[in-house]
Amino acid sequence: MLKLDFHPAGRHFLQIPGPSPVPDRILRAMSYPTIDHRGPEFGELGLKVLDGIKQIFKTVHPVIIYPASGTGAWEAALCNTLSAGDEVLMFETGHFATLWQKMAVNLGLKPQFIGRPGIEGWRAGVDAAMIEDYLRADSARRIKAVCVVHNETSTGVTSDIAAVRKAIDAAGHPALLLVDTISGLASADYRHDEWGVDVTVSGSQKGLMLPPGISFNALSPKAIAASKQAKLPRSFWGWDEIIEMNKTGYWPYTPNTNLLYGLAEALDMILGEGLDNVFSRHQRLAQACRAAVNAWGLDIQCADPQVYSPVLTGVMTPEGVDADAVRKVIYERFDMSLGTGLGKMKGRMFRIGHLGDCNDLTLMATLSGCEMGLQLAGVKLQASGVLAAMDYLGGQAVPLRRQ
Amino acid sequence: MLKLDFHPAGRHFLQIPGPSPVPDRILRAMSYPTIDHRGPEFGELGLKVLDGIKQIFKTVHPVIIYPASGTGAWEAALCNTLSAGDEVLMFETGHFATLWQKMAVNLGLKPQFIGRPGIEGWRAGVDAAMIEDYLRADSARRIKAVCVVHNETSTGVTSDIAAVRKAIDAAGHPALLLVDTISGLASADYRHDEWGVDVTVSGSQKGLMLPPGISFNALSPKAIAASKQAKLPRSFWGWDEIIEMNKTGYWPYTPNTNLLYGLAEALDMILGEGLDNVFSRHQRLAQACRAAVNAWGLDIQCADPQVYSPVLTGVMTPEGVDADAVRKVIYERFDMSLGTGLGKMKGRMFRIGHLGDCNDLTLMATLSGCEMGLQLAGVKLQASGVLAAMDYLGGQAVPLRRQ
Amino acid sequence: MLKLDFHPAGRHFLQIPGPSPVPDRILRAMSYPTIDHRGPEFGELGLKVLDGIKQIFKTVHPVIIYPASGTGAWEAALCNTLSAGDEVLMFETGHFATLWQKMAVNLGLKPQFIGRPGIEGWRAGVDAAMIEDYLRADSARRIKAVCVVHNETSTGVTSDIAAVRKAIDAAGHPALLLVDTISGLASADYRHDEWGVDVTVSGSQKGLMLPPGISFNALSPKAIAASKQAKLPRSFWGWDEIIEMNKTGYWPYTPNTNLLYGLAEALDMILGEGLDNVFSRHQRLAQACRAAVNAWGLDIQCADPQVYSPVLTGVMTPEGVDADAVRKVIYERFDMSLGTGLGKMKGRMFRIGHLGDCNDLTLMATLSGCEMGLQLAGVKLQASGVLAAMDYLGGQAVPLRRQ
Amino acid sequence: MLKLDFHPAGRHFLQIPGPSPVPDRILRAMSYPTIDHRGPEFGELGLKVLDGIKQIFKTVHPVIIYPASGTGAWEAALCNTLSAGDEVLMFETGHFATLWQKMAVNLGLKPQFIGRPGIEGWRAGVDAAMIEDYLRADSARRIKAVCVVHNETSTGVTSDIAAVRKAIDAAGHPALLLVDTISGLASADYRHDEWGVDVTVSGSQKGLMLPPGISFNALSPKAIAASKQAKLPRSFWGWDEIIEMNKTGYWPYTPNTNLLYGLAEALDMILGEGLDNVFSRHQRLAQACRAAVNAWGLDIQCADPQVYSPVLTGVMTPEGVDADAVRKVIYERFDMSLGTGLGKMKGRMFRIGHLGDCNDLTLMATLSGCEMGLQLAGVKLQASGVLAAMDYLGGQAVPLRRQ
Repeated sequence: MLKLDFHPAGRHFLQIPGPSPVPDRILRAMSYPTIDHRGPEFGELGLKVLDGIKQIFKTVHPVIIYPASGTGAWEAALCNTLSAGDEVLMFETGHFATLWQKMAVNLGLKPQFIGRPGIEGWRAGVDAAMIEDYLRADSARRIKAVCVVHNETSTGVTSDIAAVRKAIDAAGHPALLLVDTISGLASADYRHDEWGVDVTVSGSQKGLMLPPGISFNALSPKAIAASKQAKLPRSFWGWDEIIEMNKTGYWPYTPNTNLLYGLAEALDMILGEGLDNVFSRHQRLAQACRAAVNAWGLDIQCADPQVYSPVLTGVMTPEGVDADAVRKVIYERFDMSLGTGLGKMKGRMFRIGHLGDCNDLTLMATLSGCEMGLQLAGVKLQASGVLAAMDYLGGQAVPLRRQ
Repeated sequence: MLKLDFHPAGRHFLQIPGPSPVPDRILRAMSYPTIDHRGPEFGELGLKVLDGIKQIFKTVHPVIIYPASGTGAWEAALCNTLSAGDEVLMFETGHFATLWQKMAVNLGLKPQFIGRPGIEGWRAGVDAAMIEDYLRADSARRIKAVCVVHNETSTGVTSDIAAVRKAIDAAGHPALLLVDTISGLASADYRHDEWGVDVTVSGSQKGLMLPPGISFNALSPKAIAASKQAKLPRSFWGWDEIIEMNKTGYWPYTPNTNLLYGLAEALDMILGEGLDNVFSRHQRLAQACRAAVNAWGLDIQCADPQVYSPVLTGVMTPEGVDADAVRKVIYERFDMSLGTGLGKMKGRMFRIGHLGDCNDLTLMATLSGCEMGLQLAGVKLQASGVLAAMDYLGGQAVPLRRQ
Repeated sequence: MLKLDFHPAGRHFLQIPGPSPVPDRILRAMSYPTIDHRGPEFGELGLKVLDGIKQIFKTVHPVIIYPASGTGAWEAALCNTLSAGDEVLMFETGHFATLWQKMAVNLGLKPQFIGRPGIEGWRAGVDAAMIEDYLRADSARRIKAVCVVHNETSTGVTSDIAAVRKAIDAAGHPALLLVDTISGLASADYRHDEWGVDVTVSGSQKGLMLPPGISFNALSPKAIAASKQAKLPRSFWGWDEIIEMNKTGYWPYTPNTNLLYGLAEALDMILGEGLDNVFSRHQRLAQACRAAVNAWGLDIQCADPQVYSPVLTGVMTPEGVDADAVRKVIYERFDMSLGTGLGKMKGRMFRIGHLGDCNDLTLMATLSGCEMGLQLAGVKLQASGVLAAMDYLGGQAVPLRRQ
Repeated sequence: MLKLDFHPAGRHFLQIPGPSPVPDRILRAMSYPTIDHRGPEFGELGLKVLDGIKQIFKTVHPVIIYPASGTGAWEAALCNTLSAGDEVLMFETGHFATLWQKMAVNLGLKPQFIGRPGIEGWRAGVDAAMIEDYLRADSARRIKAVCVVHNETSTGVTSDIAAVRKAIDAAGHPALLLVDTISGLASADYRHDEWGVDVTVSGSQKGLMLPPGISFNALSPKAIAASKQAKLPRSFWGWDEIIEMNKTGYWPYTPNTNLLYGLAEALDMILGEGLDNVFSRHQRLAQACRAAVNAWGLDIQCADPQVYSPVLTGVMTPEGVDADAVRKVIYERFDMSLGTGLGKMKGRMFRIGHLGDCNDLTLMATLSGCEMGLQLAGVKLQASGVLAAMDYLGGQAVPLRRQ
């Protein structure tokens, strides 16, 4: 029998920036018996989750739920709206922006991959002015879409999507705006309609607190119109038939029933707490985390306080300290998982996730583990980050919301 | 809170041909805590399920596990091996063969969709000789792949794949052989390597007893070679990177961790019972089910006893009796779900699933519900099918296997 | 690791007259996290279950919930109301009445154990007239309590408790009336207040659909008054302190928190379905079961149709057929558990449980297994009981209640 | 539907000294389907848990498992070994020793309740010399049993049981030694045989990490012999029949099947980690906790470092600070439950549980919550206890044991 259910005594702390810990309520909901996805009860479930997820994206337009993980929803956004050879303007904010760009190449698109140079580009958000410049320069309107990542999971930077919208409008350019908020949704404020996004891509295993396995495309009418012309071959990802069948709460092919149970429960939890409360809780946790990193005297990877992520915090280790060695000692000694440095940042930083079903004391456990682990790994700390975080959190007057 | 956990007293009988009932053991395994998919423990899980699933497909070559439902794996099989405009020879055995053919059209392929005409074509298996004729006639070798469905979920017909392989070889044709055994795997005998299949497509929610959400491509070296030349755009479905990372038990993007827990448990259950025992149990249940249908004096949809399915049995209702009205009375009166007639068979038949985690008494409950429901719906039955099934099952000397 | 999670393929049919199968809803509720039994949320839970359980007993007086199994609640009923050397009149209806009488002896009471002689006494209910005679004869009023079993789990006889009350009143005797409805509660109609019962004893693992582990004493004011004088030593079982603390939803010692979660869910299920609907469902299932036994030509153990149990049916095997051999073949061949013959009835009968979370098709599976098993064990059956049960159930127009 | 599944976002920290948090593994095991407690598989389960629990008590003699909570096992220990009017010598170490003494009175025994006077008596362990004096003075050998509490849950004092044994032997007195280690077992070192204990009482909801609902009597041959003479009435608690039936893994009345599943899993976890490792983990956590309390400048309730408890730490609040007000702010602000002061200590102290399934980071979360809560409640702290605890824990080189 599989030994994965064996762990050291006590609870593992899964503090990576996703998959985030799945609350017991959701695990229980996922264990409801699988039902006939063409039966009468299924339609009720379908309508409920389709309605609720729109509230999370803050949209009145269709949201597609795929029985696939987030990478698939990236592909869906591209292949529903674009044709072979189309130019797309993509902005490099980190590892995931880079992977999305590689996918665009694989699919036969022609991405221009712009951004600030070197590691500094991975410490800042999207530069909307740069996007505006590129669009203005594209007098032939060859660029069909602008693709940006809202919350870069690899860096802890949350870009200003409204500014990107403004840049496109200022340039008077017809390009679609495609946004990845896989790790941002339901932890960081997001407004699909208000920000004029055409396709928003997201997934289940972050702020929605579900295991990986379902993913999303939120659409605009302009995106739907574009899909009528787009020529990239698609079938599984095709929006049309899904939108049609979703009207009655069903899907054209077998949906991921048990994860939809989990989604229904997650929606109850998030909308019950209130989206604004969810966002301010994440802001508070992130602020406490940064207070700790500052006290330690280490650099927060995100160099621009305007775009600090409420989802995760990237912590840069001092020159000569391998961040993965720090992670290893923390994992082995304190049974906590932290995020590794990805791509250009390999070994230079580690990532602390404080997204989803996180609260003050879980964060304090996390920071305690980091502080002890950094010291065990030989890192000299200026002061106790744990104390700084407690100072901050203890000073917040936040009544708990018991629903 | 979602009311889906509310049911009439007692257990619902989910006797559709998939999703099949998920055993408690698997639901429990799926509730293990989500772990870091880049952490050391994940690799162990990955290697375990990748090894085990090969035994189920009876292959020594790579099996791709997608975090997507079965329809996605259909697309993966096509887009990894073919290029726009390629001709494919597809055989119409029922609704799912038809849907796969539509997908091929959507992806820009040129399917020839052959088969026996009318409803009779949906009551028989693949005609290997017809395939051989078409291949022989294709002297220009324009046909790049032959696509057939092993177990037609819409009809209860299990085609002879070895015969298709022989037909291709007899024609000396280089076309790839692509097979869908989404509903057959782990309930009906299947031999990827021995039968010379190039890509086998399957899913989780049938014989593997999992919820929907993961799907498979089992490959041959010839298929892998073809993928190097195939031009259909692909990224999420691309085999190369997955095969590479699977070597250490990881995936290039976030896998469906909790369903993989379920898969690990399913593999323990199936390999613990023994594949041959699993197959003979399904043969026994199917035989008992057919004994009942015969006693009732109703037609089994599959008109050829050589290709009766061990997974499900299609039952044709007499002229003038709406099969969906029968299903409705059974659902409302006895809390049992049966499969509806699909496509051409709408209203003409219903489908009894006896796949996955099914045993003798569950089948007897199912047949009792059908017999009472048919009578309540006004169908005149020649004799009791329940008695016929008991006669058959009681006569089998099968010691239970308590592992 | 324990191998108890390993079973043959498919679901085990647990058709003993308790513990009955625990519905998934209740298992899920039992997995809620254990909370502080002195904390604010616990009181809410306590008040809810204390209120709900009164509705099940049909009483407005206190119901004690013990963190102990049903045998403990027997002891509690005796030791709270009686003193060493007290005479009690107990009626032999079967094995459990006999065990309760032995307990009375162990506790230093002086039971008169009356009843009809031999096996015939185990095929009929309580004879209220006989009780009346004994009470009339007890001019010294030495008898302090009359103890009867409402639903004899060992026989399938449900005695008329109202008649016993009338007998006591007719005799003008002050004895308390103590009733065991461990296996009757929430499956068979029961009315603590209306029937004038002083202490009703029950448990969790039968009609309440919970695992064993909590048990009950429903009280009358007269019983509470008696407890002030009763001299049998008691502490754990003592009512006073529990009644006092229950007023705010708490207990004087650690309650069985997770089983109380299960009880809360069970109350939602039962009161949601409606007690009258629960009772008529059990009557229907029992009637169908008896139709089968009659068709087989076997004797129902309960010889008096007035007191057939809606909870279970005792089936007597023909002379020379060991009932346990029949049970064994059914267990080994069809993975179904039936109740064994107890005490005097060892080897003479088996018991079919149709209590708790049971429905029509589950009963049909059960009867199919019995019919095949009886034949495999060489029992000649007059006709098919399965057909008789289907005739009966199919003729009932019962819309399912989907809550 | 019950709202108990609704909590503020994130995980509740249940840091009371029992019930302790139930690990997911145990909750999952408890959801195995209830089986026939007279069937063949049950005996295997019974033998497994009866064997394993002996290893936990470190005894080769019978251990009785009751389907009842711990208070019941107190009663069982007394009523199996004693007769009405027997004198027992009981030592007051705190609230639970006091309750056990009250129970003895209720059962008709004559306890002498000795101990150090006032609150100081609740800050120290059992005084073995005082017991020896009382026994020596009892020349008539009227004292039939000495009753002491091993780990006082109300104070955080773990008395020296071996010393009590020596005291009894030194006095040459035949009294039985009865010990309550309800909260100590499986967290604090305990040796039933080596220490010459006659009856050890324990429960499930502490170091064994189960929900409340099963409890234990570990016996000595001398205790079993005494039970043959003991006259207190008993039936449910009677050892004889249980010992007899346990030989084949069964019980004379319905056992708490699902909690036994949990016990089997708990035994796997504890014996897999190794009892010595479990004990040293608890010693480490307790030492870290005391380092924090010392740094805060608050008094640890246990005034004698020789008998500090590894299970919980009692923290005394400064004069004028209501400990329950501190607990309230921590509960409302940080969603953590701490133990209240009981009996004489009401409002004077709170209790931090670090028993059962606890690890370093969970303790750090706990101490962070305490430190912030104490400050929010206006308590002046000398220094950060959190830092002191991190200093201690970070300095321990403890490789995690991944089984």
